[in-house]
Amino acid sequence: MNIGLDMMGGDFAPLETVKGLQSYLAEYSSPAFLFLLGHEIQLKKILSEYRIPADSYQIVHAPEVIGMQEHPTKALKEKQQSSIAVGFHMLATGKIDALISAGNTGAMMVGALFSIKTLEGVHRPTIATIIPKENGKTGMLLDVGLNADCKPENLNQFALLGALYAKNILGIESPRVGLINIGEEEGKGNVLAQAAYPLLKENKQIQFIGNVEGRDLLLDKADVMVCEGFTGNIILKLAESIYEVTRHKNINNEFFERFNFENYGGTPVLGVAKPVIIGHGISQAKAFKNMIIVAQKIIETDLLTKMKTAFES
Amino acid sequence: MNIGLDMMGGDFAPLETVKGLQSYLAEYSSPAFLFLLGHEIQLKKILSEYRIPADSYQIVHAPEVIGMQEHPTKALKEKQQSSIAVGFHMLATGKIDALISAGNTGAMMVGALFSIKTLEGVHRPTIATIIPKENGKTGMLLDVGLNADCKPENLNQFALLGALYAKNILGIESPRVGLINIGEEEGKGNVLAQAAYPLLKENKQIQFIGNVEGRDLLLDKADVMVCEGFTGNIILKLAESIYEVTRHKNINNEFFERFNFENYGGTPVLGVAKPVIIGHGISQAKAFKNMIIVAQKIIETDLLTKMKTAFES
Repeated sequence: MNIGLDMMGGDFAPLETVKGLQSYLAEYSSPAFLFLLGHEIQLKKILSEYRIPADSYQIVHAPEVIGMQEHPTKALKEKQQSSIAVGFHMLATGKIDALISAGNTGAMMVGALFSIKTLEGVHRPTIATIIPKENGKTGMLLDVGLNADCKPENLNQFALLGALYAKNILGIESPRVGLINIGEEEGKGNVLAQAAYPLLKENKQIQFIGNVEGRDLLLDKADVMVCEGFTGNIILKLAESIYEVTRHKNINNEFFERFNFENYGGTPVLGVAKPVIIGHGISQAKAFKNMIIVAQKIIETDLLTKMKTAFES
Repeated sequence: MNIGLDMMGGDFAPLETVKGLQSYLAEYSSPAFLFLLGHEIQLKKILSEYRIPADSYQIVHAPEVIGMQEHPTKALKEKQQSSIAVGFHMLATGKIDALISAGNTGAMMVGALFSIKTLEGVHRPTIATIIPKENGKTGMLLDVGLNADCKPENLNQFALLGALYAKNILGIESPRVGLINIGEEEGKGNVLAQAAYPLLKENKQIQFIGNVEGRDLLLDKADVMVCEGFTGNIILKLAESIYEVTRHKNINNEFFERFNFENYGGTPVLGVAKPVIIGHGISQAKAFKNMIIVAQKIIETDLLTKMKTAFES
């Protein structure tokens, strides 16, 4: 199992990336083999400083860096020697089984959508986030920003992708799927939600439990919650800011601590043919460690084959 | 100044309504005159029990009650003697200057939209909520659920209605208006937000400051934040549930305490020709008191005339 890790991506790279890698290797007795993408000389120095075992990784020299503010498509095209471009090339050609980066989000999206094929039958790939539930459980929400406008069938596909992820990666045996909506009963909501409801209801591959309102998001009503990426992104960023607020205000509470994205380690891109995980720009060691763990789980559970099969049937 | 108060609406009516009225009268030296809508015999008993001064109100006998689960249009039509139906009749005919109810929300909406005229030039009335800001200030968000699907011009009108409300009722001298969106720059977002942005930018009646992301909602970036009612309702209910969660988990914090809707006293319906305030079904004394205060402010500041004038120009 080979995982590609962009060592240059994110505000605290490569220091925090190395620290994350270190704690991953310390925790796992049979870890994945890591391809570390970045500037060889820089990396060699810091990897030896942190005593990362030399048999656990191979450096892939990628001297260029795509800045956080650069135009994604342009940067990817022009900087072929950047860690992100090199990573996608390796992923597309099978040299690595998963790619992780906390670098330029747009470039990661463009790479995922254009270097890697979409799974056959999937109309639109999607990105998901974890939602901590009040009772200690964990749910997921998708789409959280890749698809600002959606068709009803998109939401139906997100539901299946999310359910497979929830089952295999979050370990939820029979994930309950809910449609984010502004009313409980069928027929409520905007045009999109009204049209998506019957599709979800008739979808035999998921366990649809109906509408989920804003007040149900943090409750243990549904495990997988679907909406278009506009609403999903607003929810995600509001949740992140509530975590920030609790930190500023010194509110120390176990529940709000679970809103710390570092616990979950990045956003998987679902619906593409290979595992791609996008980290937050402010990712630190914990986030990097968790992203590697998620990538490993995706490979171990053979999630992509399961998704492929689900969309074939 | 005559305010109509539905004494039978809400889960804790009429007891909490009376207690709210009592504390309103105790606080204000020159209070509004109240028309109390409800069952006369029941009301007489409880009003004397709570020693409400007889010269401060007049009971309007409304023996019927629209239940919280009844079909709005049907109930309003069939129960002409309900407190809500009687209230809208009085409002439409000028016997009262504002109407407040924590009863059946749907019936209040139907009443506001069909008994009371929409302000000339306003395409769609809207409902707003207060958003507490991290720094102690107060913002507002609209639409929060009346208009699940919107056209760009609707958002532009909500912005003006919200700005006038913020200035006159919240006392924000020059309200900054933001467009709820999933990116900072112009051109970001879904089709609706992309199309609404230039309208807001060109609107000389408001001070448009650009896009506001989910993470900015609680920050002091914009005073008035506009979106369609789907996203707005999800935000509102998520915010309410976060308040609930902090209560369940015994997190006592001044900031989260400000998420208690009782502090703001209900949702104004904006864009209709008369003041209508809809209370939460679980309103208690504090919420009722605050709803009366808001209604009084709307009348005192002559907000409706200002809105009318704004839409004429």
